Amino acid sequence: MPPTETGSRQPARAELRGKKVVLPDEAEGNQVYIKGYYGKPLSGGGLELDLLEATYLAESGRIAISDAGSPYPMSELVSLATRDIPGFEIKYIVYRDVRQRGYVVKPGTPPLDFRVLPRGGAPGKAHSKYWIAAISERGIFDARALMSLMESTNRVRKVFLLAVVDEEGDLTYYKVKDVVPRGRLKFAQLKAPADGLILEDRVLVLEPSEAAALHASGFYGKMMGSGLQLSLLEAGYLSEEGALNLRDARTGKRLAWKKFRESAMEQQPDFELRMRVYRDLKSAGMLVKTGFKYGSHFRVYEGDPDSTHARYLVHAIPADYRSMWAEISRAVRLAHGVRKEILLGRVGETEIEYLRLERIRP
Amino acid sequence: MPPTETGSRQPARAELRGKKVVLPDEAEGNQVYIKGYYGKPLSGGGLELDLLEATYLAESGRIAISDAGSPYPMSELVSLATRDIPGFEIKYIVYRDVRQRGYVVKPGTPPLDFRVLPRGGAPGKAHSKYWIAAISERGIFDARALMSLMESTNRVRKVFLLAVVDEEGDLTYYKVKDVVPRGRLKFAQLKAPADGLILEDRVLVLEPSEAAALHASGFYGKMMGSGLQLSLLEAGYLSEEGALNLRDARTGKRLAWKKFRESAMEQQPDFELRMRVYRDLKSAGMLVKTGFKYGSHFRVYEGDPDSTHARYLVHAIPADYRSMWAEISRAVRLAHGVRKEILLGRVGETEIEYLRLERIRP
Repeated sequence: MPPTETGSRQPARAELRGKKVVLPDEAEGNQVYIKGYYGKPLSGGGLELDLLEATYLAESGRIAISDAGSPYPMSELVSLATRDIPGFEIKYIVYRDVRQRGYVVKPGTPPLDFRVLPRGGAPGKAHSKYWIAAISERGIFDARALMSLMESTNRVRKVFLLAVVDEEGDLTYYKVKDVVPRGRLKFAQLKAPADGLILEDRVLVLEPSEAAALHASGFYGKMMGSGLQLSLLEAGYLSEEGALNLRDARTGKRLAWKKFRESAMEQQPDFELRMRVYRDLKSAGMLVKTGFKYGSHFRVYEGDPDSTHARYLVHAIPADYRSMWAEISRAVRLAHGVRKEILLGRVGETEIEYLRLERIRP
Repeated sequence: MPPTETGSRQPARAELRGKKVVLPDEAEGNQVYIKGYYGKPLSGGGLELDLLEATYLAESGRIAISDAGSPYPMSELVSLATRDIPGFEIKYIVYRDVRQRGYVVKPGTPPLDFRVLPRGGAPGKAHSKYWIAAISERGIFDARALMSLMESTNRVRKVFLLAVVDEEGDLTYYKVKDVVPRGRLKFAQLKAPADGLILEDRVLVLEPSEAAALHASGFYGKMMGSGLQLSLLEAGYLSEEGALNLRDARTGKRLAWKKFRESAMEQQPDFELRMRVYRDLKSAGMLVKTGFKYGSHFRVYEGDPDSTHARYLVHAIPADYRSMWAEISRAVRLAHGVRKEILLGRVGETEIEYLRLERIRP
């Protein structure tokens, strides 16, 4: 990638020194430093660039690098950077993009890749605005690692961005934040438990007055004629709350909650995990319904579902959840498309943390 | 679910007979048959209903069932149907919904569940319009089974619908069709191969004239300054076509196609599978780019990407692919949201079949 735009100015002379690139001339060094705060000014004059900075400045024709008196070709520079910096190509694409958006970018504290100053800010004067982790779309999404990165950016009150690079080099930025979702619904207490018939993967309440009362008490299930159809999660929850007696549809016999849970887990191996999140969201005054049509576990309403849309799509994940980034990306895009916020409900031993992933343009 | 709407008419008298329900009175039987073609008229007069029909008519108050002289309760009927019909609750939800949309529904030939007549059509006179398979969202998506269902509906020129029931009993209909995607692009032949540096999961062409020529020849990769960034698939394809020499960025040494494929498969275990679909679509005159942002393998253009949008999102799957229905549902919804068609490219030993899944309201 030789010079593309040099403007009227000649490229500054730079020299390869080990794994750094140095501009020995003080005036040329100052010029490059002032226009974008690249590199570190050296105490004896001149400027030292790291390989990301040098690649960017060489690509845009602002420096010309030599090695022992001969021009140092771009392919050699890329080769050196690839050997020296793990995931160089991903980091470079992010570095380049953030620079081209007009930000000053400085190295971050590992495992974070970059600190980004607010537009117009100078190092040492302005505080950084974003902390960025550069990620390949083919990389692994690791909930535990992400949580710890987020906590470290939270401590210093920075905005935490993930920059995900796809195989064509296109970038998507995700802002990651921990949130505490809250609703304003109150659920009525039922006087006597209703009778629920367990079919394979749902539960029917057939007695019309019981069905109507249960449905009205908290928007449970879906009326089907004068009967009520509950999901396994709803039925499990209501049974635990003492609002539902469960019966096997085939035999008509009562089924204990424990037995029910066992058979639910056969149908739905993550039943327990989902139940934890379902219960948690309900206890925070929200209405929880299946998110099947949106490809997530739940859609969640803060208020009356007849007058408001669901605000969140929530996915229940184990604390040590790992998946492909492409999967996560798909979920966020889908939520975006239907104007909902996506939350990952990370189920710990005692608590559930909610991570919000939001696509933004920095 | 006792009578909800009876209109002015008394429910017709029906009797449980084994696993059927019979309306012994000829006039009452005729009345029920004529208004929706329920059941089978018996040769000696009267009407015989199957358990789906009987449940639907009992729920809507059009029949009152007795067993040995006593009223037969709805819960017993549901219990009997659950024992007798595998997946009764799923089939019933679909049956009920299609009936409520004003269609006449008759049993299908297994494994298809229902034949649906066009609105206003009578059995024996009109040909059926849809063939429907009723599916639970928690069921398994099985590409091979789906293909064989589709072939059997194709042979008789019916529209093949999948009715997927979620845990709340909500229904989504998918129309499934095999398509042969075709484009109108021609790709230029390159005179001499370009030089490509392999980085971890992408390939860079640094020489400006080579980069520009390669990009112009078929919209390959993405320009980055004066260089070109190719995906592993693009680089693999171009190398096979003799348009690219691959070099390891770390060592500068040439890499044979076989070695490259091995290392690509480390990065991307389904590299070969994707490559089959990539090559097939390109040979049909289409432009193929990553579908990462849409959560699928490819986005595919029929013409110039600068003047047209991608028409398809394509996912490469093995011939015997199995996954959860929820996954498929998510992909279809996502494609829908961005107004693209989703194709599953089913990779067989010699050929690739494309299945289009489209959400419709019948």
